[in-house]
Amino acid sequence: MPIPTIIKVDLTRSPRENPALHNRYHPDIPPIAAVKPGKTFKVECVEWTGGQIKNDDSAEDILNVDLTQAHYLSGPIHVEGAEPGDYLEVEILEIQAYPGSEWGYTAIFDVNNGGGFLYDIFPRAAKTIWDFDGIYCTSRHIPGVKFAGLIHPGIIATAPSPKLLHEWNKRESDLVSRDPNRVPPLAYLPYPETAHMGSLKGAKAMAAAKEAPRTIPPREHGGNVDIKNLSRGSKTWLPVYVPGANFSVGDLHFSIGDGELAFCGAIEMNGIITLRTKILKNGVSLHGNQRNPMCMPGPVETRFSKWLTFEGISVDDNGVQFHLDASLSFRQACLNAIQYFKRFGYTGEQCYMMLSAIPVEGRINAIVDVPNALCSLSVPTDVFDFDVLPTDGGHLCRVTLKPPKMDEEETPDPDVERRLKHKVFVKHDSFLKKSHL
Amino acid sequence: MPIPTIIKVDLTRSPRENPALHNRYHPDIPPIAAVKPGKTFKVECVEWTGGQIKNDDSAEDILNVDLTQAHYLSGPIHVEGAEPGDYLEVEILEIQAYPGSEWGYTAIFDVNNGGGFLYDIFPRAAKTIWDFDGIYCTSRHIPGVKFAGLIHPGIIATAPSPKLLHEWNKRESDLVSRDPNRVPPLAYLPYPETAHMGSLKGAKAMAAAKEAPRTIPPREHGGNVDIKNLSRGSKTWLPVYVPGANFSVGDLHFSIGDGELAFCGAIEMNGIITLRTKILKNGVSLHGNQRNPMCMPGPVETRFSKWLTFEGISVDDNGVQFHLDASLSFRQACLNAIQYFKRFGYTGEQCYMMLSAIPVEGRINAIVDVPNALCSLSVPTDVFDFDVLPTDGGHLCRVTLKPPKMDEEETPDPDVERRLKHKVFVKHDSFLKKSHL
Amino acid sequence: MPIPTIIKVDLTRSPRENPALHNRYHPDIPPIAAVKPGKTFKVECVEWTGGQIKNDDSAEDILNVDLTQAHYLSGPIHVEGAEPGDYLEVEILEIQAYPGSEWGYTAIFDVNNGGGFLYDIFPRAAKTIWDFDGIYCTSRHIPGVKFAGLIHPGIIATAPSPKLLHEWNKRESDLVSRDPNRVPPLAYLPYPETAHMGSLKGAKAMAAAKEAPRTIPPREHGGNVDIKNLSRGSKTWLPVYVPGANFSVGDLHFSIGDGELAFCGAIEMNGIITLRTKILKNGVSLHGNQRNPMCMPGPVETRFSKWLTFEGISVDDNGVQFHLDASLSFRQACLNAIQYFKRFGYTGEQCYMMLSAIPVEGRINAIVDVPNALCSLSVPTDVFDFDVLPTDGGHLCRVTLKPPKMDEEETPDPDVERRLKHKVFVKHDSFLKKSHL
Amino acid sequence: MPIPTIIKVDLTRSPRENPALHNRYHPDIPPIAAVKPGKTFKVECVEWTGGQIKNDDSAEDILNVDLTQAHYLSGPIHVEGAEPGDYLEVEILEIQAYPGSEWGYTAIFDVNNGGGFLYDIFPRAAKTIWDFDGIYCTSRHIPGVKFAGLIHPGIIATAPSPKLLHEWNKRESDLVSRDPNRVPPLAYLPYPETAHMGSLKGAKAMAAAKEAPRTIPPREHGGNVDIKNLSRGSKTWLPVYVPGANFSVGDLHFSIGDGELAFCGAIEMNGIITLRTKILKNGVSLHGNQRNPMCMPGPVETRFSKWLTFEGISVDDNGVQFHLDASLSFRQACLNAIQYFKRFGYTGEQCYMMLSAIPVEGRINAIVDVPNALCSLSVPTDVFDFDVLPTDGGHLCRVTLKPPKMDEEETPDPDVERRLKHKVFVKHDSFLKKSHL
Repeated sequence: MPIPTIIKVDLTRSPRENPALHNRYHPDIPPIAAVKPGKTFKVECVEWTGGQIKNDDSAEDILNVDLTQAHYLSGPIHVEGAEPGDYLEVEILEIQAYPGSEWGYTAIFDVNNGGGFLYDIFPRAAKTIWDFDGIYCTSRHIPGVKFAGLIHPGIIATAPSPKLLHEWNKRESDLVSRDPNRVPPLAYLPYPETAHMGSLKGAKAMAAAKEAPRTIPPREHGGNVDIKNLSRGSKTWLPVYVPGANFSVGDLHFSIGDGELAFCGAIEMNGIITLRTKILKNGVSLHGNQRNPMCMPGPVETRFSKWLTFEGISVDDNGVQFHLDASLSFRQACLNAIQYFKRFGYTGEQCYMMLSAIPVEGRINAIVDVPNALCSLSVPTDVFDFDVLPTDGGHLCRVTLKPPKMDEEETPDPDVERRLKHKVFVKHDSFLKKSHL
Repeated sequence: MPIPTIIKVDLTRSPRENPALHNRYHPDIPPIAAVKPGKTFKVECVEWTGGQIKNDDSAEDILNVDLTQAHYLSGPIHVEGAEPGDYLEVEILEIQAYPGSEWGYTAIFDVNNGGGFLYDIFPRAAKTIWDFDGIYCTSRHIPGVKFAGLIHPGIIATAPSPKLLHEWNKRESDLVSRDPNRVPPLAYLPYPETAHMGSLKGAKAMAAAKEAPRTIPPREHGGNVDIKNLSRGSKTWLPVYVPGANFSVGDLHFSIGDGELAFCGAIEMNGIITLRTKILKNGVSLHGNQRNPMCMPGPVETRFSKWLTFEGISVDDNGVQFHLDASLSFRQACLNAIQYFKRFGYTGEQCYMMLSAIPVEGRINAIVDVPNALCSLSVPTDVFDFDVLPTDGGHLCRVTLKPPKMDEEETPDPDVERRLKHKVFVKHDSFLKKSHL
Repeated sequence: MPIPTIIKVDLTRSPRENPALHNRYHPDIPPIAAVKPGKTFKVECVEWTGGQIKNDDSAEDILNVDLTQAHYLSGPIHVEGAEPGDYLEVEILEIQAYPGSEWGYTAIFDVNNGGGFLYDIFPRAAKTIWDFDGIYCTSRHIPGVKFAGLIHPGIIATAPSPKLLHEWNKRESDLVSRDPNRVPPLAYLPYPETAHMGSLKGAKAMAAAKEAPRTIPPREHGGNVDIKNLSRGSKTWLPVYVPGANFSVGDLHFSIGDGELAFCGAIEMNGIITLRTKILKNGVSLHGNQRNPMCMPGPVETRFSKWLTFEGISVDDNGVQFHLDASLSFRQACLNAIQYFKRFGYTGEQCYMMLSAIPVEGRINAIVDVPNALCSLSVPTDVFDFDVLPTDGGHLCRVTLKPPKMDEEETPDPDVERRLKHKVFVKHDSFLKKSHL
Repeated sequence: MPIPTIIKVDLTRSPRENPALHNRYHPDIPPIAAVKPGKTFKVECVEWTGGQIKNDDSAEDILNVDLTQAHYLSGPIHVEGAEPGDYLEVEILEIQAYPGSEWGYTAIFDVNNGGGFLYDIFPRAAKTIWDFDGIYCTSRHIPGVKFAGLIHPGIIATAPSPKLLHEWNKRESDLVSRDPNRVPPLAYLPYPETAHMGSLKGAKAMAAAKEAPRTIPPREHGGNVDIKNLSRGSKTWLPVYVPGANFSVGDLHFSIGDGELAFCGAIEMNGIITLRTKILKNGVSLHGNQRNPMCMPGPVETRFSKWLTFEGISVDDNGVQFHLDASLSFRQACLNAIQYFKRFGYTGEQCYMMLSAIPVEGRINAIVDVPNALCSLSVPTDVFDFDVLPTDGGHLCRVTLKPPKMDEEETPDPDVERRLKHKVFVKHDSFLKKSHL
């Protein structure tokens, strides 16, 4: 008895025509399929932008991508017997690229249309195409690199309750209100114009869309966690907020590095995922009333023996000392790694996309040794077809430069740079940070 | 030909009497030993407080510890031929507990004397003693846990140049000046009163001590990086700032978890480390002029097959949304993990110390999905002698509670709590954060 | 550009109708497809018996299987530029179960129709059906077991030259002639009656079939090596004997244990394999003129942390001492493992099939400590959903016995037993062994 | 409280003077120490020959070694409460080289004094010295190789009962009687002349020595199992035959490859082992009445990512076909590996010793595909400091030849060769093999 496919997609048609897809969270979006706990099923998924990005050598599609449409998710799926307060266990049994669509992309968004972790350093759109050869991928835009994908979904999410949904909107609009004109924005608020509410139509759909949270961030229900280890064989435990759980899945990645530096840093792809669910009754309270999901990595991750680790501390690019700021420390580790790999002949953009996509490990090694948090980025050296370890005498330039074609000149516009560094950046962020740490 | 021991310690005497130890960084501290690149040698080290902590069941020593004495490091060691601009490669060939001293400790510092990552939640001193059985450790204070140590030095550091030293003092005092009375302090500035300047004595020692940076944080020269994977077989590459590199080593740990949550979260011990050096001439510029060291983990880390992963996002305990704040996200992941393990019967303090000491992985999984950074804490489930995975029906209380004895009542003082939450915390940190992210 | 499928199969039709399949080796079988080195392609494969075995609860099909038809292989495939003396590098990029056929089987052959490693202990046919849930498999016939498949082809083989083919026939018939009536036979000689010679037809096919070696054993050209680690991401290097290499592939397994104890001990399945070739010119002599292929395991094998290891020495069941006989030592290790797992409630047949299919490791640990070779069988304990490690007090019976249905009574026929032990066995094997060791 | 050392050795004195050592098994040898289950203790051990081999560049000591003295074991150790029928669980908590003796050796014995797995190919004595640098070892005799030791005891053994002892002597003398003059001998029988019976002295010692089995082979009580994975953190379960178990330990190895090809193929060393015992009452019958011990590897084995695998089948050097002969198949895999590595410039002897000492994996991959067993030898490629994978164009000679000095000319004596191949070998072994397989 073959495993049933409960949601299908057609890559030749617009995802907006498919009622089994949606790009916002809302409890009113009706489930499009139902499953019994313990039963295995398959779900087809489109890449997160719904087909806006092409397999070519231009980044124009990235520059102009409509991010308000993202992410197209498959679902919602009703799980029989799930009730609020339960944990929905989702076991990922298999993930594959969509047959005939054995490629994916990593991209740097333009600072004015999405940005990324290092948007001030790399403000221009760029794109890398990856070809899949079974478990491996390679890129014509980043020579010298080959690795096995730690394939996973960026997003699995249960439907929020109305109460939770309003909490999200409140806290995120509070944040945005601190700097409503920031570029890139501090958060993405509901945007009904491009909402696809699945099979919900008409006035009800419009009403829901106006308050439907966007899919960009991870939240209490799971969502865009982008955990690379949530791969084949893994399990995740998500809180249930509405009867039936009404969970969705999508944003499949062939690979990702911890951090997903370039925002569109994973290898985005169309694909098929095989799942099985289980319900842990009253699981949330029975497991400690955590505020966020739990998960367990799968057992078939790539075996690497050697890692090169780059370190960073909480001192910014101008030498200013911050206090246990892990985000800043991680930024420094990433910048160090980029500096290192540029010595082999890669451009900065290639390094940035490469470190976004290969399964690097981003660590918080120590967050107590005031004033510096120590964060690190560890790169598995086996992904390169040449030796990348430090050596006496340094390294020869090993790769033939073939940078991804970009739509604007490679040299950053000095004015843009100035604006990024002085106007948007330093001015605004000073009051955005007041966490407990 | 046996491997020579170039620095010895005597655990029965004060570390202050030993000219081969020091507890501050300064280029004027004369090297106490010299080695040739390529030669293997051993160095004996005392635990970081220099013997202030006892193998007993009281946390009084932790409560009253003199942190201004830490860390007692072994060195400096002169490496023949090392010059500023070189990379000093230090290969860690072996590390062992000091013979006859096969035990270590993990502790929570009192908020008024050190604090830790979760000082607002766990403000009181507590202590856990670990016994070493060869590669394994167990604790009479945390039942049900046994694991192999990923033994490593918390600190390897080259001597700073005068210029670098002044940069550090400047930036760190700038930080402290933003809230000079904060408890715990934002950083630890030079403190000559308890400085041990090795073999430097008299007026010169006093002059140097006044400007000698403390050893608490990691910095550009390495220092207190607390990277658990810098274990047997690893290599680290440190910039050289003074002729001969004059590097020091110490703060040996039997184990640590990523984050070292409880500040004194590693398993602190006396021990012996076996090293070999190599010089990469002009290595810093030849490898990309990074601002921080690089390292490569060793090949004999413990093999675990299952990890349970706790997640956190950039929303604080009060539901306030922050922007890509990895430190906050990691805090939430840690709090979730603590909630989880308390279900098995552990106290919060036991969970906090346990998660500080066992080789957990702290990850920055995604730092681009605005407004939430997704950080996680992954716990290897094999360290427990009972099954800790989520299960339908939840878990029975599996451990007999035997919390570490504390010097004050277990219930936190409400006034202290209030002060922590409202005065020190929210008020001050708002302007401490203005990183680029 | 999707990856092309160069050989297709139709599971609803007889494999004998498909000219892209064959079940004998012979240089005269014309290639059915051609590939360029460096290009990726897919090949569909039928399970080795060509569909004789059903997904049901009876072992009657196993009892009566026509082994003379095995193995149906896909090919031959011509590789452009390959010449005798070259190494053909075959990289396995992906392997999947055939869509809609997500199941496989492990079986014990009847001693009169195939036998197996322990045919004297388990002489009766039995069958286990495995269901695939993505990367995992479970069986209704062996409760309590679940594991991720280390999916691989049992067979990749280049076409032999006429000279090599005749060497094989000569040496194998010499062996058979020492005991032509042995049950099971010592080797399987050419058998034209059921030969399927691919697209070769008529008199030429009949002539070739008469001398075409069977596909049962591994030989110099690769063949039925049954190496479990020849999985996703692996490479194998096969000598080329005829222009174009004319290699074939098949006998896909979802999993296998080292040894493949029960002969049909792998989990046999229909599937699709993705490959890429490369030619190493004059590779055989340039790499040492080895007599057998080389290979390199892939990087995504299942991560296990705990193994339970059973040992065996060169003393037979009757206490007779042999000299460095690894086969005998391995037999003892297997018998020990079966004894062990029977304590949990499994039948001997279940243990035998289970240890054939799960990814156990069979080792030759020492082959010099006369007179005993020490061999071992290591079982990954995580495949069981209960704790299988030794414990004070022994184990409760943990599984509900549900042995695979057999076609004859479970109790072995005493006459058969006697014949096995005394006639065939002791008498005949005494002169079959005269190796160098 | 430091871990007590219950047995000490003095490397400057003869092991024969030390009553805490012995080199034969016998229940009459009195325990020299006693331990309580659950308590940790240390045992010092001398290398197996008791100091006959020197750290120099001549193999003369190997040529003339007195093997009748081997192995000097530490013990017996009485375990309180152990009784016949119990399992003695021995947990290996740590193993280290003896302080000040950080070196070891691997050797090829002369065919007339020990031999080895490939004694017909490498009949002459040779020696390799390894230097230990913490967890790593390197050799001046085998350039280009460095690896972390999987340190372990070759031997842990409980004392046999008189009944068991007589069984051993009976079956082994039966074997020897089939070819009493064979060189090397088929087994080593009791030899009282050089027996060291521990603290047993006088007539009783002589009487016991006459029937005391030698320590060369592994047997039902454990003994010389030479399992490399019985390293730090491992457990072994040994049957108890006499009250108190009276177990012994010794033959410490810094490393070994599966097979231990060269007989003295491990890296033999003096060292210290840390142990803890536990008793499983009636464990033998409660765990299935196995004939041999069980064990569980430790969790800190070296992480390798790439292995190169050499294969072998049951066809001998002259092209004669054997039937499922794993020993022969493994021989062929080893010969293939040696051929391969000679291409890099190593001599055959260097390859033979190297593959004996580095942690290669020897596998029985399939033992059912008549007539060929498929065995393999997998070599971790990271132990070489150059790339050893197959490549188009073959390999340059990468190592400077510096073969170990030998006492006789390198070219084998043709007469010796002829004798080896035709007299001893083929003639005698033909009737030694009559196992069940």
